[in-house]
Amino acid sequence: MRVDKLAVIGVGLIGASCALAARAAGAVTQVVGIGRSQANLDRALARGAIDRGLLLDADWAREVADADLVLIAIPVAQYRGVLPTLAGVLGDRTVITDAGSTKQDVVLAARETLRAKLAQFVPGHPIAGSERSGAEAGDAALYVGRQVILTPLPETSAEAVALVTDFWTACGARVALLDPGRHDRILAAVSHLPHLLASTLVAELASRKDSAEYLGSAGSGFRDFTRIAGSSPEMWRDIALANRDALLTEIAAYRTALDALASSIEHGDGAALDTMLTRASEARRSWSETAGGIVATRDGR
Amino acid sequence: MRVDKLAVIGVGLIGASCALAARAAGAVTQVVGIGRSQANLDRALARGAIDRGLLLDADWAREVADADLVLIAIPVAQYRGVLPTLAGVLGDRTVITDAGSTKQDVVLAARETLRAKLAQFVPGHPIAGSERSGAEAGDAALYVGRQVILTPLPETSAEAVALVTDFWTACGARVALLDPGRHDRILAAVSHLPHLLASTLVAELASRKDSAEYLGSAGSGFRDFTRIAGSSPEMWRDIALANRDALLTEIAAYRTALDALASSIEHGDGAALDTMLTRASEARRSWSETAGGIVATRDGR
Repeated sequence: MRVDKLAVIGVGLIGASCALAARAAGAVTQVVGIGRSQANLDRALARGAIDRGLLLDADWAREVADADLVLIAIPVAQYRGVLPTLAGVLGDRTVITDAGSTKQDVVLAARETLRAKLAQFVPGHPIAGSERSGAEAGDAALYVGRQVILTPLPETSAEAVALVTDFWTACGARVALLDPGRHDRILAAVSHLPHLLASTLVAELASRKDSAEYLGSAGSGFRDFTRIAGSSPEMWRDIALANRDALLTEIAAYRTALDALASSIEHGDGAALDTMLTRASEARRSWSETAGGIVATRDGR
Repeated sequence: MRVDKLAVIGVGLIGASCALAARAAGAVTQVVGIGRSQANLDRALARGAIDRGLLLDADWAREVADADLVLIAIPVAQYRGVLPTLAGVLGDRTVITDAGSTKQDVVLAARETLRAKLAQFVPGHPIAGSERSGAEAGDAALYVGRQVILTPLPETSAEAVALVTDFWTACGARVALLDPGRHDRILAAVSHLPHLLASTLVAELASRKDSAEYLGSAGSGFRDFTRIAGSSPEMWRDIALANRDALLTEIAAYRTALDALASSIEHGDGAALDTMLTRASEARRSWSETAGGIVATRDGR
């Protein structure tokens, strides 16, 4: 499979990695990058992720009008500044996809802006990332063995879904299809909640007047548990607000589980602790041996 | 510094790693291992961690009577099966230390059993570990750059503290002294709570009837956040029960922070989310650059 012209809107970690992966796979001929900062575009050019770069506040519309594939890889909260422009110029054979971490809000924004061109839009979410950001962090291997979830609309054409599926497969990913609401519920539980739990712990410790003494005794468990707390605050604020309902449901479920934990500890209920910890340990081990194809691929853990 | 005879009671990850580290540093002449399972002792022998092994239910007392240093590296809940035997045979120049994750309960058990020999006891806690266990997981580099906290009693002799300090320093660790209660409070916050939060998340997800679909979409953030949930249920049950009061205090503080998070999301308060996420991100980055000497030493993150 080969895309002649790929336009990447947002050449950060996700966009640059995708461009680098497509290039490495020989799945693309030319790549145009569109972004907020000239410095980052220059970095993407220097790394060979893109062939030319345009600023988001310049006239980039004609560059995407004849693209075969447009990947939107900017924060979801900024889509409404981009989608109407795309709707105005988009050629009939151009397919649009995105990499946003939430999908119901993206579908809503697409419905309100793309209208007649909705058939050309394939909402997507590559389940891959890093606490690093920018084109500098781009990695051609970021998607190898990872899952990309596509949440096509009833209006989305089968050809568009096939193109985006083939493209991500060429980048090394496994593609799965899911309903947008189901996607948001699942990601709230396995991604958004853990991120916010880790950030909550670090922020709570950092707000103590003797935080240096606490953090000075933290070891490798803390290191791994909190790695995701180093991620972009702006991005995670937007995700938390965009996936509000699913997140509140997940936080409530987690609070119930946390209350049960506190009760077990308070009453010295070793059997209840055993049951919970054994279930967690077995599920985690089984996950890292199976679904964690990710795991083996990335760092062997 | 050189210890002629080291006795390691419990030749699991922690005990075997310590023996291997001391050997690699030339800080020990002979090592006797005492453990629950012959298979694990054989493994420790084969790996060169120990020179000979004795089962805990055999007559191991005379082997430790003339040791220079005894390291207790079994679960804290099992100390009371070992300390009275030690108290009965211990020579005057033998120093005892331990590697238990909690210290107030260890101090209490030592006070009740070692009595006249309390001066020879240096309670300790190496802040290092892994989700793996057993002599097989032993690693001579486990303690390099890590912190070992010693919590000596008023009765502990300065010579005993100096010996244990020199020993751990030879193994590559940085030694810090702390009050046992303060140790337990700090470790509850930076180690025990994160472990239990991770296990609670995995157990909650695993208990859902559609857990496979949730876990199948989990990525690298989930992987790192939950790595510690794969740890030994038995060990973490004992820690949770042993450090009950400090843990309940920390869980309560965390719940308050979690409630504030839920409230921010519910009311769409982006500014409050920004403040919390920025504080977390900055603190985490600063931690990994400084206190995380650990971090750079182990895997560069």
